[in-house]
Amino acid sequence: MARVYNFNAGPAALPLSVLEKAQSELLEFAGSGMSVMEMSHRSKDFAAIVEGAEANVRRLMNVSDDYAVLFLQGGASLQFAMIPLNLRRESKTADYVDTGSWASKAVKEGKIGGSINVAWSGKEENYTRIPKQSELKLTPGGEYIHICSNETIGGIRFSTFPKTEAPLIADMSSEIMSRAIDVNHFGLIYAGAQKNLGPSGLALVIIRKDLMDRCPESVPIFLRYKTHAQEGSLYNTPNTWGIYVVKLVTEWLESLGGIAGMQRINEKKAATLYSAIDSSDFWRSPVEKESRSIMNVVWRLPSEELEEAFVSEAKKAEMVGLKGHRSVGGIRASLYNAVGQDAVDALVAFMQAFETKNG
Amino acid sequence: MARVYNFNAGPAALPLSVLEKAQSELLEFAGSGMSVMEMSHRSKDFAAIVEGAEANVRRLMNVSDDYAVLFLQGGASLQFAMIPLNLRRESKTADYVDTGSWASKAVKEGKIGGSINVAWSGKEENYTRIPKQSELKLTPGGEYIHICSNETIGGIRFSTFPKTEAPLIADMSSEIMSRAIDVNHFGLIYAGAQKNLGPSGLALVIIRKDLMDRCPESVPIFLRYKTHAQEGSLYNTPNTWGIYVVKLVTEWLESLGGIAGMQRINEKKAATLYSAIDSSDFWRSPVEKESRSIMNVVWRLPSEELEEAFVSEAKKAEMVGLKGHRSVGGIRASLYNAVGQDAVDALVAFMQAFETKNG
Repeated sequence: MARVYNFNAGPAALPLSVLEKAQSELLEFAGSGMSVMEMSHRSKDFAAIVEGAEANVRRLMNVSDDYAVLFLQGGASLQFAMIPLNLRRESKTADYVDTGSWASKAVKEGKIGGSINVAWSGKEENYTRIPKQSELKLTPGGEYIHICSNETIGGIRFSTFPKTEAPLIADMSSEIMSRAIDVNHFGLIYAGAQKNLGPSGLALVIIRKDLMDRCPESVPIFLRYKTHAQEGSLYNTPNTWGIYVVKLVTEWLESLGGIAGMQRINEKKAATLYSAIDSSDFWRSPVEKESRSIMNVVWRLPSEELEEAFVSEAKKAEMVGLKGHRSVGGIRASLYNAVGQDAVDALVAFMQAFETKNG
Repeated sequence: MARVYNFNAGPAALPLSVLEKAQSELLEFAGSGMSVMEMSHRSKDFAAIVEGAEANVRRLMNVSDDYAVLFLQGGASLQFAMIPLNLRRESKTADYVDTGSWASKAVKEGKIGGSINVAWSGKEENYTRIPKQSELKLTPGGEYIHICSNETIGGIRFSTFPKTEAPLIADMSSEIMSRAIDVNHFGLIYAGAQKNLGPSGLALVIIRKDLMDRCPESVPIFLRYKTHAQEGSLYNTPNTWGIYVVKLVTEWLESLGGIAGMQRINEKKAATLYSAIDSSDFWRSPVEKESRSIMNVVWRLPSEELEEAFVSEAKKAEMVGLKGHRSVGGIRASLYNAVGQDAVDALVAFMQAFETKNG
């Protein structure tokens, strides 16, 4: 068995111990005589899995009873559509902060069927920084403010969150459970699972319960948050395998000291890589320092040819997923929770050797 | 390892050889150095998986280029909502045939945002039969006719399909790929994967391409079939693990002689069980003979007490999933593709012993 260092942006690395556990139980889960994939979502065995996963999320993120915790399908992309459908009432306006590729996908979907205001856009600066609070032009009496708390492609993140009167909604797909946040600061938090939580095909949604009442009856039943909250994520057959893996991942996270422990590990990983980038003019970070993501680290080399060589030689050295997104080029290393310090150390050692050879 | 005979209605049994293959590749897929769950959906390795799965579906079901084959999230329940959103134009009416629990869920969602006509309902007969063509009161100039081709709970199925002017749309979740059908007879076929195709969290949609143009721009981008068709099911991150398992299941199906081979096996399994039910007054099928499903076989015992004893003793004999749906009671055995003749033989032997003891 040869496993590589996996810097994929998502779907991404999972903890080896989680994969091993899933592998060992794949033919028969806990004396049930069947795989988790073959189990009724209404069975006692699966109830323990989904309730366990929800309890883990609540404990790790300190989620109060004022919030529903949902496991939905459709990833973050369906959330881009469900949020305005559920939370923007007729003739009202919602604010969107445009910090990059993912925020602007939410903007695009937000424009359907109602009014939005782009409260700030980093587009003309090539999405290299997060706005200051004072730069946000929020709508008085607006319905909500949507942000993407960490931009996977641009490699920037909100280090602190805007203070807002209307509920703050955050797409946290690429940084969920990577650092401590105060859930009570938000109206809704959502995340596609495939970066920090588990496999793709699943989204975690944490929504303040009172907001669910905003949804008009013209919205299809399946697309209402309330529908899924009333049934504990079992209105219809959920992604049972995905929820099972999320349960295992959240248990693994707990074993590392929860989110506080994970944050320390993540900050050290990011510091290791950023200090390698900052140590030489051979590497260049395009991102404003205060806006740097600790999950997705992007940087450039002196030329595109060298960038190509870097990605290709890294692959030979069993480090994969380092090519920057095609829309921005350059190099990107995603340092999600399951990427260990050993992977970052190996990457930095490879960078030093590459610079010596090509610098 | 102790695997039981699994008669679950869904999620349901998967072929053992598929599970073993998935288990063996779980830590490292085909020299990629990572699990399928850790792989970018934009990678060459995953492209081969999703394109392979689509090619298998097209070959097995003989799907022409006039149709798009999509792997979507949200199961059949999201399809209940997407169908009227995409295919029912303003001020037009869609016909729904109400044959049971699943058909009526589609009806419920179809009532949102537009007009439907229930062309026939079996509700007053407790959903024990499929209507004849002459009983359907279709809307002249209607947008489409929606049927559920096999009712998982009622245990009935269309043995032949209605002839219609408007496009026929069929929820085939609980019988997809269990028998030969002519895709060209339909405008749209869909199926949640978790009964005959793979794990939950995935739906297969086969849609005639010209119908996708009906969708108005007021529909969220994510909820348009066209969005997913244009990107080969990769508009957003799909359920990658689910698609991988579907690829394995369709390969397994091909090894059994494709759908024709599977149909022969399925008809024999169903005949074995129905003839046991018909052989004695101890058992009673509530379903009209011509409407009997070959996937979900439902029957009654002389009393509810005996039914409870049957389910509980069967479980001790390592046969699970035999309890009828709570809405109808009785016994149900789901004989999906992955349930072998050996399981049916064991069940029939158990029934004979149970009758001897209690009859």
